[in-house]
Formats: sequence, structure tokens, C-alpha cells
Amino acid sequence: MNPFIEAKKSNGIIDVPGFQSVATSCDVRNKKDGRLDMALILSPTPCSAAGVFTKNAFKAAPVKLCQELLRVENKFHGIIVNSGNANACTGNRGMKDAWSMQFSAASACNTPPETFFVCSTGRIGELLPMQKIRNGIKDAAANLGSTKEHGLNSAKAILTSDTKEKIITVKVPYLQTPGKTHDLDYITISGIAKGAGMIQPNMATMLAFIATDADISKNLLQKILSEAVDLSFNRITVDGDMSTNDTVIILANGQSRIKISPTQSSLFHNFVLGVRHVCNVLANKIVSDGERITKVVEICVEGAKNKTDANRIARSIGNSLLVKTSWYGSDPNWGRILDAAGYSGASIQEEKLDLIYATPNGMIKQRSAPVITKGRYLLKNKKRWKDIVSKKRFSIIIKINLGKASYRLLSTDLSEAYVNFNKSE
Amino acid sequence: MNPFIEAKKSNGIIDVPGFQSVATSCDVRNKKDGRLDMALILSPTPCSAAGVFTKNAFKAAPVKLCQELLRVENKFHGIIVNSGNANACTGNRGMKDAWSMQFSAASACNTPPETFFVCSTGRIGELLPMQKIRNGIKDAAANLGSTKEHGLNSAKAILTSDTKEKIITVKVPYLQTPGKTHDLDYITISGIAKGAGMIQPNMATMLAFIATDADISKNLLQKILSEAVDLSFNRITVDGDMSTNDTVIILANGQSRIKISPTQSSLFHNFVLGVRHVCNVLANKIVSDGERITKVVEICVEGAKNKTDANRIARSIGNSLLVKTSWYGSDPNWGRILDAAGYSGASIQEEKLDLIYATPNGMIKQRSAPVITKGRYLLKNKKRWKDIVSKKRFSIIIKINLGKASYRLLSTDLSEAYVNFNKSE
Repeated sequence: MNPFIEAKKSNGIIDVPGFQSVATSCDVRNKKDGRLDMALILSPTPCSAAGVFTKNAFKAAPVKLCQELLRVENKFHGIIVNSGNANACTGNRGMKDAWSMQFSAASACNTPPETFFVCSTGRIGELLPMQKIRNGIKDAAANLGSTKEHGLNSAKAILTSDTKEKIITVKVPYLQTPGKTHDLDYITISGIAKGAGMIQPNMATMLAFIATDADISKNLLQKILSEAVDLSFNRITVDGDMSTNDTVIILANGQSRIKISPTQSSLFHNFVLGVRHVCNVLANKIVSDGERITKVVEICVEGAKNKTDANRIARSIGNSLLVKTSWYGSDPNWGRILDAAGYSGASIQEEKLDLIYATPNGMIKQRSAPVITKGRYLLKNKKRWKDIVSKKRFSIIIKINLGKASYRLLSTDLSEAYVNFNKSE
Repeated sequence: MNPFIEAKKSNGIIDVPGFQSVATSCDVRNKKDGRLDMALILSPTPCSAAGVFTKNAFKAAPVKLCQELLRVENKFHGIIVNSGNANACTGNRGMKDAWSMQFSAASACNTPPETFFVCSTGRIGELLPMQKIRNGIKDAAANLGSTKEHGLNSAKAILTSDTKEKIITVKVPYLQTPGKTHDLDYITISGIAKGAGMIQPNMATMLAFIATDADISKNLLQKILSEAVDLSFNRITVDGDMSTNDTVIILANGQSRIKISPTQSSLFHNFVLGVRHVCNVLANKIVSDGERITKVVEICVEGAKNKTDANRIARSIGNSLLVKTSWYGSDPNWGRILDAAGYSGASIQEEKLDLIYATPNGMIKQRSAPVITKGRYLLKNKKRWKDIVSKKRFSIIIKINLGKASYRLLSTDLSEAYVNFNKSE
């Protein structure tokens, strides 16, 4: 049983005591359609914070700003984010605009200047319409609040071509006085995200913002977030492209007055699992809403020689055009899976290999159909493979049997609609 | 000027004195359509030989056979090849079938048993129809010859979903007595190939067979071929997938009585260039006939820190789904090119970078339109980018300006038709 409770209905960031948010429309896309394209998240109480960012050599201006901010500051008040323009590949002017967004947000919220994270997502290589952005920030700050509408609209404003909002809230219970259940208290963790998958021409980026009222140090929070991201957002792939703007930020305002430290092992453990669950659910929602996909496929590599090999095999399969197009056609084309595993560069021996198609763990009746057992092909299962691969969600288990390392990656199919969608602006 | 002459019209392998070939139909695909699906290449004079093979961990049975053959033998007589079935992922039975093909070919041609290379291309994971194969080999051996028809049909029989035969012949002139032009002699080099690009569902493999009448040792031939392959076939990509069967084999029967050795530096040099040209032309024909492509794009990385980095950047761009789909749409989406270069893992600095769209070298009026110069974007060139990217063939020059290493890769766009073509068997 999980040591946390997932809220049946999340309203996003405002579920966390002490957090306010708001969405507004600044017409960044210049379409005059009133679309929400800016969100402001504020905690009047100062927060500790942590972040994980794209490893792309070309980092967008706001990513550079956030990394610098985390390096030199210790107290943070919020996040200002716009969609429609990524402020990426915009040189010095882009940096100036990002700092200007930060300054405007802090000033409008009456907080010290360098306490706001800045994020942008959308087109690459175009300058932000700064007058609109500054007006939007003023308008947003004047309308901050904690209603359901405030929460849900903020989750909506960060989207680009996603088809739905991605939100989650969990509560981690905590007994203030062990044994006395009336002293039960909660730490709340909420997250919102926008999709990966280089979702539109010149649009990139996955963004995730997480808030919690736990009382936790910046360093510890960073450690927990980095691990959680590695186990969730780093294990999804839609098209294998890593954007210039990918960002995950967590803010902790301490308002629950429940202190998280590794010495309180049970609470610490439960909080870690809570953060991981939030990241996992958001990552799952992102991949399931991937660009023009029709299937989500879980690739489980087991028994690889080492972690690097397990990772390589999973990504080689999950990013192969031929594997992804065969999934799109519901074709149990195990030859292409082997081929992709074979060129991954990992240690692999045909005669030791097991390959299994399975319905995913979450399904009530787990069913599996072996394809290869110790390098021998079980052609009699052909119909069962086809049944499984025809589902909207299935798993591929590939046992290398050369060691103990494993890796799990969520991937998707590749459709003609993806190509059509991405072929031009 | 090239130190060799490219024949205006090549008839394939039979252009080389002493080589015979033939094509036949064994109905490997079981469609009873009379399609040519087997080729036999023979030199009654024993040859030295060299080969380059897939690096995929899963090697098809015939690939294993050829590698073993090259390791232990020194004299070779020919190649037996079928299309329609790759004899890959077929275990011990597949190995037995490959050896049986070799034995049948040698026996039908009255040569010692272990003198034939064996190649297969087509479906993965199905056993060869050995009775049909053996009958085909007998039939082929009985009809060997050196006419134009023999040559062209052999080039046709190895195809799978290629749309046309890929053949080339070059002649390398050699003055027997320096200064006396009536003593001019030639070394002939001919090649045939079938396409890369994982050309059909469950079809994989690029194959290239080269014949020459040069007199050259096995070791030297291997060195020349390995370098030529690295500069040609290893520098094309259609979908980034490397097959279980990729094979390049060269046979040299010595019938010109012109000996190639590194001490004869000018002849040696010219022969090396001749082999490279044959490989380059075949590689070019393969990528231009890639699966449902509409454009061929040359990616030239210059000034990278080292060779590995140059290679990584080129492949990261050439295999990016988002880059390839934007080419398909004639969209000069340089943001995606930078993004792909940025996640390649290579050293790269935005402020040092130059990016240029250009019409390819071969075109009479070379035109280029810079996109980025030292990290600064030249948006005024927008229309010229679009003009270039709309062509069927263009170049992307990316100057890293951090070192001296360069790499050139030929890639293609990615069309909706590719996805449709590959989605199922």
C-alpha cells in the first residue's frame, strides 16, 4: 500500500496550503484569440526550491536564468511562465528579456527581485513581445488567488499542443504524536505539467512545476527531485528529441511545519515516494498525451550487464523508427525489436535472450506471450502476440540474462499524423 | 581530374574480365510471380577477397558464415545471394542452411567447397525454403554467363523494395611501360548494390558486391575496402536502423595481371580512389532510392573538437525525427537542427557556431544562405533558406569552430508514406 493518498480530484498547485496562482492571456502568439498563455505561481512565504533542466548544449535563456538562480539564491517566491514563445536561441537579448520577466513578476508581487523562476515554452528563435509580457505579468499579479479556477487555469495556460491539462495532488499523512490519530496531519504535494514530444513545429519542451508545504532544505529537496526525475520524466520518449527548455521545478514553503530530514526515516521515505508518485503520474500523462500517438508501450529491460547497457537497449528500441511504426500498425514485429537491441552497443547474446509481449502491470488480468526463450523462437504464440500488440497499451519485456541491471522506458508509436503534424510551421 | 574513368553504361559485375553471373527465380517469397530472387557470381579463377559486415549484435547466419570464411580461407570463387528471406534470427538451423547454400553453389560450379560467400536479404525470423533454394542454385549454375543481360539481371535479383538497380563500373588506367601510351592497360572495378533504409516490413539490409580484375593481396584489399566503406556506406542514413545482414564484399581475380601494392604509389593511389568512387556512387544511389523519401540532404559538420564529436553531431541531426519531418515539409526549421546538435553530446558553443543552408557541391551555381554566424541569427535570409530547403537535394553546413574535425553524412527526409509503408507486414 502506498504511504500517501492521491486526491480524487486535483486543482493543481493551489491545493497546497500557502500557494496562490493565476492565469492570464497576453496574446504571445499574436492571434488575438484570448488564449491563456501565462501563469504566475506565488508563495508569499519564502520557499526552498530545486530544479532539473535540459542537458541540451543549447539552453534557452530562461533555463540559464533558473540554473543561475538556484546556484546563488536560497529563498524563492514563485514561478512566472509563458507559452507560445520559448525565448530560445535569442542570444543576449533573450537573457535580458528573461531577467526582465523575473523582475516584473517579483515587483508586481512585492517580493525581493531575485526570487522568481522564469520559464518559457513555444517557438524557438523569436524574441518575446516584452510589452505584452510585462502587461500580462501586472494583470496576473493583480488577480492571484487560490480558487479551483485559479488552479486549473494555471495548468491550462502552460500548455502548447497538449490536448489536456496534467495535474495531480497527493497527501502524505504524518502523525504529530505517534499513537494519537487525532494528531494526524498531512504534507501536500501538487504538480502541473505540459507535454513532451516536441509537440509542435518549433515547439518543444516539457515543463513541470511542483509545490509542497513540506519544510525541507534546498539541498535535500534537490537530491529528492533529481532522483524522482531520473525515475520518471527521464524515462519517457515520444520522438527521442530533447528540447532546449525542459524544466522541472519544485517549491517547498514549509507551511505544514512538518520538517523533512533523513533522520526521520519513515516520514522522509514517505515524502520521497510522494514526490516520485507526482513525477511518475505527470510523466505518464505527458507520454499518453504525446504528439499524435495511438499507443503507449512500456519497455522493460531486465538482466543487462550494467545500468548503461539496460538504458541503451531500452532507448534503442524505444526510439527506433521501424519499431515505432510497427507498433502503429499493431504488428508484432519482434525482428525489428531484436535488430534495435542489437545495434544499441550493449552486451547482448542471442542464445541467452528472452523476449515477452505482455499486457501492462496495471491491468487486472495480466497476460503475457513469450516470443523468444533463451534465443529460441516460439512461433506458435503468433496470434497472442498480435492480440497484445493491438492494444492501446502493452509491455515488452526483454531479459538479457547477462547481469542484474534493469531499466524501464515508456515509449509511443509513430503515426503518419505525427509526420504530417510536424512537417512545417 | 579523377584518375579513373566511369563507364557511361555499366552492366554490373560482368564488366570485369573473368567474372560471370546469372539471376534466377526460386520463388522464395512464395508468390509464384516469377520474380528474380537469386544471383550467382562466379570467377573460375580464384580470387582474393575482403568484406565489411554489420556491427549489429544479432548477425544473420550468412553474415556469420562470411566472416568465418574470410577468417580461415584465402581463395574464393564467388557469391551466392537470395532476396526475400534474410535467414536472420533463425538459430542453428539457419547456420546449417547457410552452409548448405555455400556447398550447393560450390558443388554446382565445380569449385572447392569453402570458396563461396553467402548472402540473404528479406524477412527476418523465417527459415529459408531450402528445396527451392537448392533447385535455384542448380538452375543458376547451369546458366552462368557474361552477357549484358546476365549482368543486369543479377543486379535486379538482389533488390527487395528498391525502385531501381544500382550498378557502376570504373576503369583505372595503367601504363605498362611508362611513356608508351600504346601500352595503356586498365583495371576494371564494378559494383552492384541493394538499398538501405530497412526498406520493407521485416526487410532490412544493404548489400554491395564489388568485383575487380586487380591482382591484390587479401590483407591489402581488406584495408582498402574498410576505408572505402567508412567513407561511403557508413555515411548514409535513412532511418538510423542498422540491419542484421548488412554486407559489402569485394572479389579480386587478378586477371588484369596488374599488381597493386603500396610500393607502386601512383597506381595504388588510383586504385584506392577507384574503389572509393564505386562505393560512393553505390551509397549515393542507395540513399537516393531510400524508402519513400522525397529529399536527400547532405550534412557537413566542420571544425568539431574531434572526429567522434563531428560524427555525433551529424548523426544526431540526420536521425532526428523532427529535423527529417521538417525537411519533408520544405521547412527551414533551423531551431530543430540546433536542438539536435545540442543533445548530441558533442562539445558545442552557441556563440561560436555557424550554420549555412547551401545547394550541393555538384550543382553548377553553388548558392548558400547563412542562418547563423558566430551564434547570431541572420533572419533577413529567411526567403533564401526556404528556396534551398524546397529543393530535392541540398546541404547543411554546420561549423562548430572548436577544432579541426569534420564529418559528412547523407540523410533523407521522413514522409508519411514511410510510416504507412512500414506499419505492418
